[in-house]
Amino acid sequence: MQYPLSPDVKPEFCTTGSFMRLPSSREGARLAILGMPFDTAASFRVGARFGPQAIRQASMLLFPYNPVQGVFPFEETHGIDIGDLSVIPHSIHRSYAIIAAAVEDLLRRGIVPIGLGGDHSVTLATLRAAHRVHGPLALIHMDSHTDTWDTYYGEKYWHGSPFIRAAEEGLVDPAKVFQIGIRGTLNHPGDISASLDLGYNVITMRELRQRGMAAVVAEVKERIGQSPCFLSFDIDFVDPAFAPGTGTPEVGGYTSHETLELVRSLTGLNYVGFDVVEVLPSHDPAQITALLAATLVHEFAAHVALNL
Amino acid sequence: MQYPLSPDVKPEFCTTGSFMRLPSSREGARLAILGMPFDTAASFRVGARFGPQAIRQASMLLFPYNPVQGVFPFEETHGIDIGDLSVIPHSIHRSYAIIAAAVEDLLRRGIVPIGLGGDHSVTLATLRAAHRVHGPLALIHMDSHTDTWDTYYGEKYWHGSPFIRAAEEGLVDPAKVFQIGIRGTLNHPGDISASLDLGYNVITMRELRQRGMAAVVAEVKERIGQSPCFLSFDIDFVDPAFAPGTGTPEVGGYTSHETLELVRSLTGLNYVGFDVVEVLPSHDPAQITALLAATLVHEFAAHVALNL
Amino acid sequence: MQYPLSPDVKPEFCTTGSFMRLPSSREGARLAILGMPFDTAASFRVGARFGPQAIRQASMLLFPYNPVQGVFPFEETHGIDIGDLSVIPHSIHRSYAIIAAAVEDLLRRGIVPIGLGGDHSVTLATLRAAHRVHGPLALIHMDSHTDTWDTYYGEKYWHGSPFIRAAEEGLVDPAKVFQIGIRGTLNHPGDISASLDLGYNVITMRELRQRGMAAVVAEVKERIGQSPCFLSFDIDFVDPAFAPGTGTPEVGGYTSHETLELVRSLTGLNYVGFDVVEVLPSHDPAQITALLAATLVHEFAAHVALNL
Amino acid sequence: MQYPLSPDVKPEFCTTGSFMRLPSSREGARLAILGMPFDTAASFRVGARFGPQAIRQASMLLFPYNPVQGVFPFEETHGIDIGDLSVIPHSIHRSYAIIAAAVEDLLRRGIVPIGLGGDHSVTLATLRAAHRVHGPLALIHMDSHTDTWDTYYGEKYWHGSPFIRAAEEGLVDPAKVFQIGIRGTLNHPGDISASLDLGYNVITMRELRQRGMAAVVAEVKERIGQSPCFLSFDIDFVDPAFAPGTGTPEVGGYTSHETLELVRSLTGLNYVGFDVVEVLPSHDPAQITALLAATLVHEFAAHVALNL
Amino acid sequence: MQYPLSPDVKPEFCTTGSFMRLPSSREGARLAILGMPFDTAASFRVGARFGPQAIRQASMLLFPYNPVQGVFPFEETHGIDIGDLSVIPHSIHRSYAIIAAAVEDLLRRGIVPIGLGGDHSVTLATLRAAHRVHGPLALIHMDSHTDTWDTYYGEKYWHGSPFIRAAEEGLVDPAKVFQIGIRGTLNHPGDISASLDLGYNVITMRELRQRGMAAVVAEVKERIGQSPCFLSFDIDFVDPAFAPGTGTPEVGGYTSHETLELVRSLTGLNYVGFDVVEVLPSHDPAQITALLAATLVHEFAAHVALNL
Amino acid sequence: MQYPLSPDVKPEFCTTGSFMRLPSSREGARLAILGMPFDTAASFRVGARFGPQAIRQASMLLFPYNPVQGVFPFEETHGIDIGDLSVIPHSIHRSYAIIAAAVEDLLRRGIVPIGLGGDHSVTLATLRAAHRVHGPLALIHMDSHTDTWDTYYGEKYWHGSPFIRAAEEGLVDPAKVFQIGIRGTLNHPGDISASLDLGYNVITMRELRQRGMAAVVAEVKERIGQSPCFLSFDIDFVDPAFAPGTGTPEVGGYTSHETLELVRSLTGLNYVGFDVVEVLPSHDPAQITALLAATLVHEFAAHVALNL
Repeated sequence: MQYPLSPDVKPEFCTTGSFMRLPSSREGARLAILGMPFDTAASFRVGARFGPQAIRQASMLLFPYNPVQGVFPFEETHGIDIGDLSVIPHSIHRSYAIIAAAVEDLLRRGIVPIGLGGDHSVTLATLRAAHRVHGPLALIHMDSHTDTWDTYYGEKYWHGSPFIRAAEEGLVDPAKVFQIGIRGTLNHPGDISASLDLGYNVITMRELRQRGMAAVVAEVKERIGQSPCFLSFDIDFVDPAFAPGTGTPEVGGYTSHETLELVRSLTGLNYVGFDVVEVLPSHDPAQITALLAATLVHEFAAHVALNL
Repeated sequence: MQYPLSPDVKPEFCTTGSFMRLPSSREGARLAILGMPFDTAASFRVGARFGPQAIRQASMLLFPYNPVQGVFPFEETHGIDIGDLSVIPHSIHRSYAIIAAAVEDLLRRGIVPIGLGGDHSVTLATLRAAHRVHGPLALIHMDSHTDTWDTYYGEKYWHGSPFIRAAEEGLVDPAKVFQIGIRGTLNHPGDISASLDLGYNVITMRELRQRGMAAVVAEVKERIGQSPCFLSFDIDFVDPAFAPGTGTPEVGGYTSHETLELVRSLTGLNYVGFDVVEVLPSHDPAQITALLAATLVHEFAAHVALNL
Repeated sequence: MQYPLSPDVKPEFCTTGSFMRLPSSREGARLAILGMPFDTAASFRVGARFGPQAIRQASMLLFPYNPVQGVFPFEETHGIDIGDLSVIPHSIHRSYAIIAAAVEDLLRRGIVPIGLGGDHSVTLATLRAAHRVHGPLALIHMDSHTDTWDTYYGEKYWHGSPFIRAAEEGLVDPAKVFQIGIRGTLNHPGDISASLDLGYNVITMRELRQRGMAAVVAEVKERIGQSPCFLSFDIDFVDPAFAPGTGTPEVGGYTSHETLELVRSLTGLNYVGFDVVEVLPSHDPAQITALLAATLVHEFAAHVALNL
Repeated sequence: MQYPLSPDVKPEFCTTGSFMRLPSSREGARLAILGMPFDTAASFRVGARFGPQAIRQASMLLFPYNPVQGVFPFEETHGIDIGDLSVIPHSIHRSYAIIAAAVEDLLRRGIVPIGLGGDHSVTLATLRAAHRVHGPLALIHMDSHTDTWDTYYGEKYWHGSPFIRAAEEGLVDPAKVFQIGIRGTLNHPGDISASLDLGYNVITMRELRQRGMAAVVAEVKERIGQSPCFLSFDIDFVDPAFAPGTGTPEVGGYTSHETLELVRSLTGLNYVGFDVVEVLPSHDPAQITALLAATLVHEFAAHVALNL
Repeated sequence: MQYPLSPDVKPEFCTTGSFMRLPSSREGARLAILGMPFDTAASFRVGARFGPQAIRQASMLLFPYNPVQGVFPFEETHGIDIGDLSVIPHSIHRSYAIIAAAVEDLLRRGIVPIGLGGDHSVTLATLRAAHRVHGPLALIHMDSHTDTWDTYYGEKYWHGSPFIRAAEEGLVDPAKVFQIGIRGTLNHPGDISASLDLGYNVITMRELRQRGMAAVVAEVKERIGQSPCFLSFDIDFVDPAFAPGTGTPEVGGYTSHETLELVRSLTGLNYVGFDVVEVLPSHDPAQITALLAATLVHEFAAHVALNL
Repeated sequence: MQYPLSPDVKPEFCTTGSFMRLPSSREGARLAILGMPFDTAASFRVGARFGPQAIRQASMLLFPYNPVQGVFPFEETHGIDIGDLSVIPHSIHRSYAIIAAAVEDLLRRGIVPIGLGGDHSVTLATLRAAHRVHGPLALIHMDSHTDTWDTYYGEKYWHGSPFIRAAEEGLVDPAKVFQIGIRGTLNHPGDISASLDLGYNVITMRELRQRGMAAVVAEVKERIGQSPCFLSFDIDFVDPAFAPGTGTPEVGGYTSHETLELVRSLTGLNYVGFDVVEVLPSHDPAQITALLAATLVHEFAAHVALNL
């Protein structure tokens, strides 16, 4: 056995701390946190590979009990943290294989994964794994961007394309895909129609505000019903005042309070997995972005506990 | 006389600037600002000992007149700043004695104190002094945490316990204690019932939002009436976007606007003192937390002026 | 030719020194961005001379299309960026001459200027130029301060006086001047009456909230009508949580969402120019202030496009 | 079993990552890293409780082999990281007991401890444990301060007194104590004679430079010989340019190169333990202090390997 | 009397803390620290108006005794801190008058001034005052720039010209002016000959290193002899690693150790005043620049004490 | 026409997006700066894509004349800045083609390129281009790492392998390759023998210090003679105190002064190109790393001017 764990065996950006000091043994677990420190598919600021460790550090500010949902999310689910996956920054396809294998393994053990990104490209690998186990998925995608752009300088796999690829690969049931919080300037008016053309439901931040959270939540619940559902949360859904640490921030987002209320209200769905992505510690001087992400993980875990 | 003032005489974290450059002579004063740079009772991030100087620096951005309340708070009260108390980081009990003595001296001169923390443990010392002068107190406690945990690894005096100690010592009239803004994850469901068991009124952030500020303010005013009242403000009451510089931030809080409106609306009470605590400059890169705290001090001072 | 250089053509992390990599040739342009890096008229924090470059850097996060207004603001206006003016920090009057000449030149070519400050003193020079071309102006002034203080230690030209000077010089039609967002502590009650005495309309942040955005916008539109109108935006209009990077922040402001909605709703006016001032990069660690300012420039440009 | 590890069981500033991802099993180990996140004995800036996790994060930049000494320090010693000790910030004496017990346990197993502070007060606890096992110790103490002040406002146990206490308790052999790097302003000329009166050897930074590193190293080696020797390294030994992240920096120190050369040259001593203390992440914006501390740990480990 | 001190009376960037908490009464004092927070004569980064308060804050890390020189500088000189002068950022000439009057008043009382800048333009005002009292001065000017450029866009008074103006005004004896540490790129080869043409002695950083500190110090001492001598220290003399917080940093400078040794070795001169300028807190994230400046003030004070 | 735009003509805070505001027209140019913002081949911290713009911003602190070498580097070479190349972060091979084509085009026009990285992988593309034009190259490689590791998780092209690939591709004459400044921990003792096995000359930082700069420079000059020579400078050659903003810092490096002296002394070589890589703005809070890199570019340009 080698001392210490060599960078030849695991990239050195994969540290060893765990979320809220959770254990790692899969035995009996129903929920697992896992780091996906892949970030080279980003188009602007990079560095989200350090997102998982920042979220884990911020998680030390959290306590075990969620009083709004009335659960001990991690105790009730025997939650674990299996650490960072050994993704390879220089190969998205090999990284995808590693992520998909790890997620599929968890799912087949009956463990709900909560992924910590990494840039948003990691979600495609997770969806592939979830699809293998559960078939076509419902998807709640909270983000300021649709991430259904096709290519970036001819490259098909980047952090702006996971949800067009997901549709092409048949991983999701388009009628049960909700992209919520979309806002900001666009390359073309067609940026949003790309999603609509895929059959996705796009609820812009303006529409969310105009219709109100309750109405949107009701529609989402009704449409998705008990289909296996994945929730992917890009931290830039939230306004940069509340989440400055991200790669492509967009002003005019929800507050942290509104965000928590939205996530908490999405109860009763058949969640098969979650992720929170695009946390960028280099632009998070007071660690408030990481704290918000960690709090969201706590809320995701509460949904898992409520579903037991 | 020694040049300069030696660290043997006053700890070196006690600097000499004053809030808005107020004078220090107690003669004729009805209001005094005083620093309580004690922070070693904190459980997570430490460094609030530098809070008072940060608040004073930020106070340079303020002007003398409060147009919402229509008063010159410091001119009308002959407000002073008596500087930082020589607390001793390695002894909470000796620090408590120093704080309590200074506050009692002010109160007996008819001067209303506004303490600048320091961690929240300092409030217990202030309440002791106020109780000596005024008897059992009404208390408005704005915070994201109840701070009625009993012990921390067997230690009874820390920044999570001042309000259970206050009840045990009979410093407050429990029916007239309002803990407002409570939110976030908990150790146990019992964390809040600890306050309820003491007879305190707990108004969580969710309840505050659901009932509305006006209803809550009306209840507080009616219950407290003209009892001598202390207002203790933990800066983590506010959302971390508005107050990142604090030791145990909690997402989902009030905005600065909402906070100011709440504080401003609590007129007509018989205030005997105030404090603002848990400002942590090391996590406040743009000094917005300190500015918010300084602005709150200005609002507290306006209440004193209105009560003249 | 496309305006501006699209991220489809060159990745957005490849900057060029201009806003969204706009070209600089005045030929055919109807809109021009220009830097006014003058900041020595500030009274507290200085350094807004680096505001223009920070806004330009943040502009790399923007895309060409404004989906709310349905326009490609820069393509439709053949928008350009003519760079930073060679202001002289040690002479406000010579700097004013340089700014006024540059703005007048643009206006006479039928090009709408969008100035990037610098401190707020630069607006006086712009108003002089606009007045030469258009006569007395309507003015929408969004700010937390009225900037109608008379002198600063006997100096008449500083960042707190542009709008009293503008009235004295007859540059504006006082009845068509709206100062929106005013808040915070004051030197004297008279600070606001100085504006009222000039005949300006002052809408404090509290009034804006009490009356509601729609009512205020309606009044502004009705009063100003089709008069040539300048919009001057001090970034401290916005709450420091959303815009920490500024010289004299004031808590209790609008959110970024509210701010964008307000600016977007002011359609149909006869805009002859815009500026966004007081962006201070040294206090903007995550660049969210600069991003908000850049987004506002995009919105201003949309107004120009809508007016074509 | 509880999920996750509760703050009731271990303070929440004790995270779970390990140095260079070392394992934790004591089986077969000859070297152990352990965190001592106690910082409330500091007199100025606090927050060194977060030093251990910062050093561990920075350790990810290190590789297994030390080419100067020609060893694989951790592989050869079967090095482990046993995590952070559950110190109690509000009780130095209970924290001392916890630290001393853990260190003694390691020493009795034949494992050389490398402690990560925390403030310098932790060294006293370590020396107590080492003394129990090895008797009076030689001590190499690198620091800009002697830390032989007696009391701080009457408190005997603080980060300025561990080495006067150590002498009083008979933990060290004064003739074999070397305090190296002392510099900066003093309270009294007697600050240094306090050390001399204890029989310690004080080598100021000026003397170190004047005599040269080689001469000093030779003297240290000769005097200490094969006595059991502890090396305590306060990061403020180094100049603040190279180690800004510390609580009481002192300009005029060694460079990182000089520091490494000094530490590397102290071969052939009978080391029974090491620590590196006073790393303060809140003042280490680029993490260079933590990296230097981690590199020193690597060098300490090399000494252990060379002694096998 | 007004409460609090209004910004109408003193600019709000003039805070009230004192260096090492020195008193302010001129009675019996032989040394005075005074802030000169004027910074609008800078050509690049601005913000040195906050230098004095940063230096004062950092001074809290210093102790009363200087062991290298063997003096208690402030006790022996009855040192005081008279606070920040009410300079006016928008008028260099009025600021000059204020500075010169204050310095002259001190000098006539037999008090040696140590000015805290502010940008380097303040030194001209100080030299004027010193010249009025002492006649033509010897000058030791440590800097990376000669500051003998003539004009900046036609403006004669800026931070790059104080020493050409000083010569023109006859304030210095050119043969006794030493500019030490000059380095970096230049506008023209003539930048240095401008100083030589004035009759100044220019010792570049390269020459200082080649000849060695001792030789240069010997020459300076011999040439200056007992002429009344002013020492002006621009913090950019030091390498940016040791002093990042400055407006126009220049790589390749002295270390803090070398700098202290140089300053300490310049004993036996007839010092009539000192200043340390161009400390820019906005670029000093760990406050090491301010600490170095404060330490230099301590050394300057030691020279005054040695001269008593 | 003057190269570059002088601060006499436009204040240096007025940027334009190019290094020292150089023009871009290739006409008559003998030297070109170009950005290579490719950073996804990094193994630890990413974000060097923002290095070029940080270096350009810092270049505003430089002046046209280099007094040590006695040249106006940019005027004499008609230096230009052709901007950032449109590299594609998701494809190293397509990025390599873009870089190589741009560099080859410059070289064929007789223009010496100075590349601004980006991570160190970009150098391979540059060497390919230079090899096409000049045949096998001499190489001076200043770095703390050899960058001759073979693969990273099976990927051959990453920032740790350019110099093993260069040898394999025959781009360099191994006997004329000098790797200078190597230090720090290693994966295996073989990390350095990998370079030696390629026939490279490895001069570790310790050897550089032991033999002295002059001896090493003499050897380099003698061995390389007038072979076409490329100089590749990884900013982590320098100690982190002087260059904190980099991805894989290594303590114990040269100071900025030593670095400049080394680079300046390497005169008389037949330079065909230069680069400076691995500048990471997210870890450069005071911009001193970018300033050092910009200063090195100025020195490189001086070599080109001296060779005219």
